[in-house]
Amino acid sequence: MLRIGILGGGQLGRMLLQQAANYPVETFVLEKGSTSPASSLCHHYFDGDIREFESVYNFGKQVDVLTIEIENVNQQALEKLEAEGLSIFPSPKALAVIRDKGLQKEFYAAHNIPTSAFVLVNNRSEIKDASIGFPIAQKLRTGGYDGKGVEILKSSTDIEKGFDEPCVLEKLVEIEKEISVIVAKNQSGEVAVYPAVEMVFNPKYNLVDFLLSPAEITEAQNAEAQKTALQVLHALDSCGIFAVEMFLDKTGNILVNETAPRAHNSGHQSIEGNYSSQYDMQMRVLQNLPLGNTAVIQPSLMLNLIGEAGYTGAAKYRGLEEAMRIPNVYIHLYGKAETKPGRKMGHVTILGTSKTELLEKAEQVRTCLKVVA
Amino acid sequence: MLRIGILGGGQLGRMLLQQAANYPVETFVLEKGSTSPASSLCHHYFDGDIREFESVYNFGKQVDVLTIEIENVNQQALEKLEAEGLSIFPSPKALAVIRDKGLQKEFYAAHNIPTSAFVLVNNRSEIKDASIGFPIAQKLRTGGYDGKGVEILKSSTDIEKGFDEPCVLEKLVEIEKEISVIVAKNQSGEVAVYPAVEMVFNPKYNLVDFLLSPAEITEAQNAEAQKTALQVLHALDSCGIFAVEMFLDKTGNILVNETAPRAHNSGHQSIEGNYSSQYDMQMRVLQNLPLGNTAVIQPSLMLNLIGEAGYTGAAKYRGLEEAMRIPNVYIHLYGKAETKPGRKMGHVTILGTSKTELLEKAEQVRTCLKVVA
Repeated sequence: MLRIGILGGGQLGRMLLQQAANYPVETFVLEKGSTSPASSLCHHYFDGDIREFESVYNFGKQVDVLTIEIENVNQQALEKLEAEGLSIFPSPKALAVIRDKGLQKEFYAAHNIPTSAFVLVNNRSEIKDASIGFPIAQKLRTGGYDGKGVEILKSSTDIEKGFDEPCVLEKLVEIEKEISVIVAKNQSGEVAVYPAVEMVFNPKYNLVDFLLSPAEITEAQNAEAQKTALQVLHALDSCGIFAVEMFLDKTGNILVNETAPRAHNSGHQSIEGNYSSQYDMQMRVLQNLPLGNTAVIQPSLMLNLIGEAGYTGAAKYRGLEEAMRIPNVYIHLYGKAETKPGRKMGHVTILGTSKTELLEKAEQVRTCLKVVA
Repeated sequence: MLRIGILGGGQLGRMLLQQAANYPVETFVLEKGSTSPASSLCHHYFDGDIREFESVYNFGKQVDVLTIEIENVNQQALEKLEAEGLSIFPSPKALAVIRDKGLQKEFYAAHNIPTSAFVLVNNRSEIKDASIGFPIAQKLRTGGYDGKGVEILKSSTDIEKGFDEPCVLEKLVEIEKEISVIVAKNQSGEVAVYPAVEMVFNPKYNLVDFLLSPAEITEAQNAEAQKTALQVLHALDSCGIFAVEMFLDKTGNILVNETAPRAHNSGHQSIEGNYSSQYDMQMRVLQNLPLGNTAVIQPSLMLNLIGEAGYTGAAKYRGLEEAMRIPNVYIHLYGKAETKPGRKMGHVTILGTSKTELLEKAEQVRTCLKVVA
């Protein structure tokens, strides 16, 4: 049986493992701590730090193919493992480009992939000289996650509240919509591309508030978004699954915001909403099997279920019964013992025939279902 | 978190656990041997015999709610656990009726549930006196499984090849179609009923060869089949999920063949083909959550993937790549290390828009995909 190693034991690993059980594979997970969302669903679980060379290297030596469910893994270990012949999807080279938001922007520019104007700075004092003009999105080059590590600088007076670390400064885009396209490539060179989805953000936590699949954009815009995502995939020259997040700006241009080298929050709805889910697709990539059908089965809406403000401690799910009484509402809880404000504790996918129906059901779910302590 | 115990670690447990990971539950499995199809997907795995009083009783004392994925469990332990307050779905009483095919037939008769004529015998010598007339289906009262424990006696000369044990003799039905309806009930008394599916048997192994969902029967026949299945559910007076297998005879009557007190082979297609799968439904029952939507999303065909004749040993899946190249073909392998002729090693669900399309794809899958050693 093919031995598949997953670096990281969070919810993306958990959902990948639910899917992995359909295939002839032996699953290995590396994550810090004795339990994690993925720990009870794999054949072999290792308590270790994915950021440490030794743990990643030793873990990698036990498997036939290695993947990630979070970017923040030890890069040198991956490079050594790859040099020693291990299959790693995404490739360490692609991961290195993506994990540094500065390199990532330079990569888009170098490959003529449309992206917003940007400049790299090493510290706060360099921001003043930035030529791109305000307003600016200031992003930490490394270590940002789930909306952390981003500041909006509206004018020069905001510089003081920004980061004093290596950052990329991006000209703020006048956003019409935020969309995402998931793409995948296997070792045979076969490529798959999902229809674009549309993300609506919660400004408070800078997390996706809900996601609509497919995106409400024109066919031409969807085709353009898919073409751009494939351009990113080809430029990265790596097998794996990638989520290409894009802005559709007010003038109708599509600009790549950033790419995730793994399954992504913007693909959760694919479990019920598309013929082949992003997790099924990742499993196909890892086994070098033919890629799945990305088509939408039914329009869907995905809501993140985040820890309610004011509650920290052992998680409880208030209103689960009421939410599950609504037809075609799918609950996915991530098995995290502790909740805290803003923590991603699960998600809910709703299938429906119209946007109105989806939004109505989403409002019902949002009203009743709360993660408290 | 609700502690859910599953007696049995086979494929039905495996698929239940894939679904269980969406809910706030802690999972426990009891099965003989250090590994089983379910062993890598639960929080707590216990190596023990589900037929032994002590192992089942001790296992049951650790959980809040107990379910089964196979009938062949220690009945006394269940009865004692229930008497001590444990929730068990199906109820031990319903299980006792179902596991003895003689009691089961008497139960249908007592509740005016349509079923074929039958008579109970204790040994071979009593068969001669059987009043129902040949041809007869002779079934072992207990211990039969997956088509084992059934003999067809065409005439009195066949008696010698039949069983010399307590059996039920059933008047052989002139079958037009074999159909199955899955029903569920939760503790709140809520009831769910799936559309009928149609089973086509492989005469060689007496296993379901393929299954069509929904069944190709009239609306009135589907309504009658659903009504009959609910009649069985109400008569059993038990929470849980049940598969009611029925014959549609040549004269258009619906007769109950037998009932399984658990998720069933005839519901596998519901994972992709129905809004709420039978495993999701079982999870809802166990948590006393509102029951799911049983409607068909798309017509589907389910093929059992059984060990190829002539191969015994470590399982290999020949033709997996070719099968997965066919659009909307879903592979479910059960993680069994060893194959042998006729062993259920997995199943394949195909989604399609017409019966013709489904049958064509099924033929392609059957031709290429083989479990060998």
